[in-house]
Amino acid sequence: MNFILNKENEIYYECGWSSDNAIFLQIGDNRFVITDGRYTLDANEKANAEVIEARDLIKKAREIILKYKPKNLKIDPNNWSYKDFEFLSKVVSLQKAPFFSHKKRMIKKDYELDLIQKAVKKGAKAFEKFKKEIEVGLDEFELSYRFKEKLTKRGKRELSFEPIVAINKNAAKPHATLTKTKLKKNDLLLLDAGIKYKRYCSDRTRTISINNEISMSKYQNFKSLNKQKIYDIVLKAQEVAIKSIKVGMPICELDKIARDVIKKAGYGKYFVHSLGHGVGLDIHEWPYVNSRNKTPIQNGMVFTIEPGIYIPGEFGVRIEDMVMIKDDKVIVLSEEI
Amino acid sequence: MNFILNKENEIYYECGWSSDNAIFLQIGDNRFVITDGRYTLDANEKANAEVIEARDLIKKAREIILKYKPKNLKIDPNNWSYKDFEFLSKVVSLQKAPFFSHKKRMIKKDYELDLIQKAVKKGAKAFEKFKKEIEVGLDEFELSYRFKEKLTKRGKRELSFEPIVAINKNAAKPHATLTKTKLKKNDLLLLDAGIKYKRYCSDRTRTISINNEISMSKYQNFKSLNKQKIYDIVLKAQEVAIKSIKVGMPICELDKIARDVIKKAGYGKYFVHSLGHGVGLDIHEWPYVNSRNKTPIQNGMVFTIEPGIYIPGEFGVRIEDMVMIKDDKVIVLSEEI
Repeated sequence: MNFILNKENEIYYECGWSSDNAIFLQIGDNRFVITDGRYTLDANEKANAEVIEARDLIKKAREIILKYKPKNLKIDPNNWSYKDFEFLSKVVSLQKAPFFSHKKRMIKKDYELDLIQKAVKKGAKAFEKFKKEIEVGLDEFELSYRFKEKLTKRGKRELSFEPIVAINKNAAKPHATLTKTKLKKNDLLLLDAGIKYKRYCSDRTRTISINNEISMSKYQNFKSLNKQKIYDIVLKAQEVAIKSIKVGMPICELDKIARDVIKKAGYGKYFVHSLGHGVGLDIHEWPYVNSRNKTPIQNGMVFTIEPGIYIPGEFGVRIEDMVMIKDDKVIVLSEEI
Repeated sequence: MNFILNKENEIYYECGWSSDNAIFLQIGDNRFVITDGRYTLDANEKANAEVIEARDLIKKAREIILKYKPKNLKIDPNNWSYKDFEFLSKVVSLQKAPFFSHKKRMIKKDYELDLIQKAVKKGAKAFEKFKKEIEVGLDEFELSYRFKEKLTKRGKRELSFEPIVAINKNAAKPHATLTKTKLKKNDLLLLDAGIKYKRYCSDRTRTISINNEISMSKYQNFKSLNKQKIYDIVLKAQEVAIKSIKVGMPICELDKIARDVIKKAGYGKYFVHSLGHGVGLDIHEWPYVNSRNKTPIQNGMVFTIEPGIYIPGEFGVRIEDMVMIKDDKVIVLSEEI
């Protein structure tokens, strides 16, 4: 198969090396990674492909195509600019294949499952370490700063995305940004964060109660009866969904199962996003766990289960864990460390 | 003029608001910003345009185009995926205009010059604050972590890019990444960093000597005669280039002037990049200060002057300051605070 890639994670998947300025090209058995002079030394050590140095990557890719004359070349039209696509289309028949790398990467290999499991464990440990840093009186900026200190081990490790740290009504926004709101006793605090381990991502959300014994467990005690009620509905939705996972089942059924729990409790309209998403080299990848995806659940899949209820102006609850399917079994990556 | 934008900074420039998921559309006097439900509240408060909420932004853009029927629509083919470009091209005559927003933004308005000046001042202050945190024995990771703490004020401010912190031979890589190398007395330390103030970027590089009186000044004393010699060549190249700036002069001449100083000293082949780049909402924008850009220097331009000499395996020196052109005068934004 002949194909061309320009996304960092998609290239890494193919040849075990990548940079923020690279193109990967496979023509028959010939595999090339084109990058600029800053990166060629590193690429030569690590890439399982012939490394080609160039200033103008797309021009060099075109040269290689002209030399090897493939009959056609698979390309994802979502990932390439109109300009580059047009430039390549003049020398080869481009075969549009939307998301073909996502499709490939949806079923993880064993070594990938291992790395993801390790990433999740390390991510969960950081949540535990951060627990000791939470103090009443700190604002979301400072809480986030301390959280990231633990997640990144003072900059020695990468985040898989910018964490969400949201108190009470700010947690009612599924993608809250930081505010100067200060943490008080009995507040609700939503924490959504992940780290990268050998380029593989972790992702987890906890919604916790700021009481005398702060815990990162899924079992939380809120002073407010209303918060507790809604928390328990979200927890039930997550637990029921996780228990229902079965190889062969269309993935959209999972979304329905969780959504039905929340609907029946009367909060359907406050669950404003889909149930989850795949996780791997990308923090959001295939399979998407929503109401439309009929793909059957398969061995090698890794995805999040993260129902939520968001009451505008009051508070929001989301509980998120990652699951993986291996040897027809469901492994919940939620070990409380 | 009718045009469409999808880049965050380009949209912000037009309507004073933006998000990481937005499209801006101007058709005659009608100005629209399309974004998703997470952002519409904020957009309605701040955007100088009609805010339109949509899940599928490009589909909504197409609807608006079909309603207002512009004769043509300017678009930058570098910024749009082949897929989106093709989708739009079915309903309107797209007029390819590479870098048209960069071209517009190259000449800054007075309020922009003010914001950039403030950004540079705040950035320079962070360098001074970090000075007190530098200790022999710390590795590049920890130095970078402490630097970012000052640059971001513990997460309350954004970086304009991931800083470069490089000791001795790591500084010989123009785009060094962090290593575990520990700082020793008499080492050379290269620091390249910037912050954002009201979305406008600062950018500065200092190469400093780790002696008894660490300073962020451009005037440095190295114990090694060779380091001092090369440092002084780079400093001279920067100073001569800055003094030569004149309105009307082709910008490529500046690159030549700095390069000639380094060439004459015998280090021409070690100055491996261009002299500078524009700075504004983007950290790298027009005008690029290289050997090919014949654009004349004009009032309202802001760019860096950053010559460097990189001796592989030994060390590298780069000195970078920003300059702005206003009322036919050159303002060097390098005040040592």
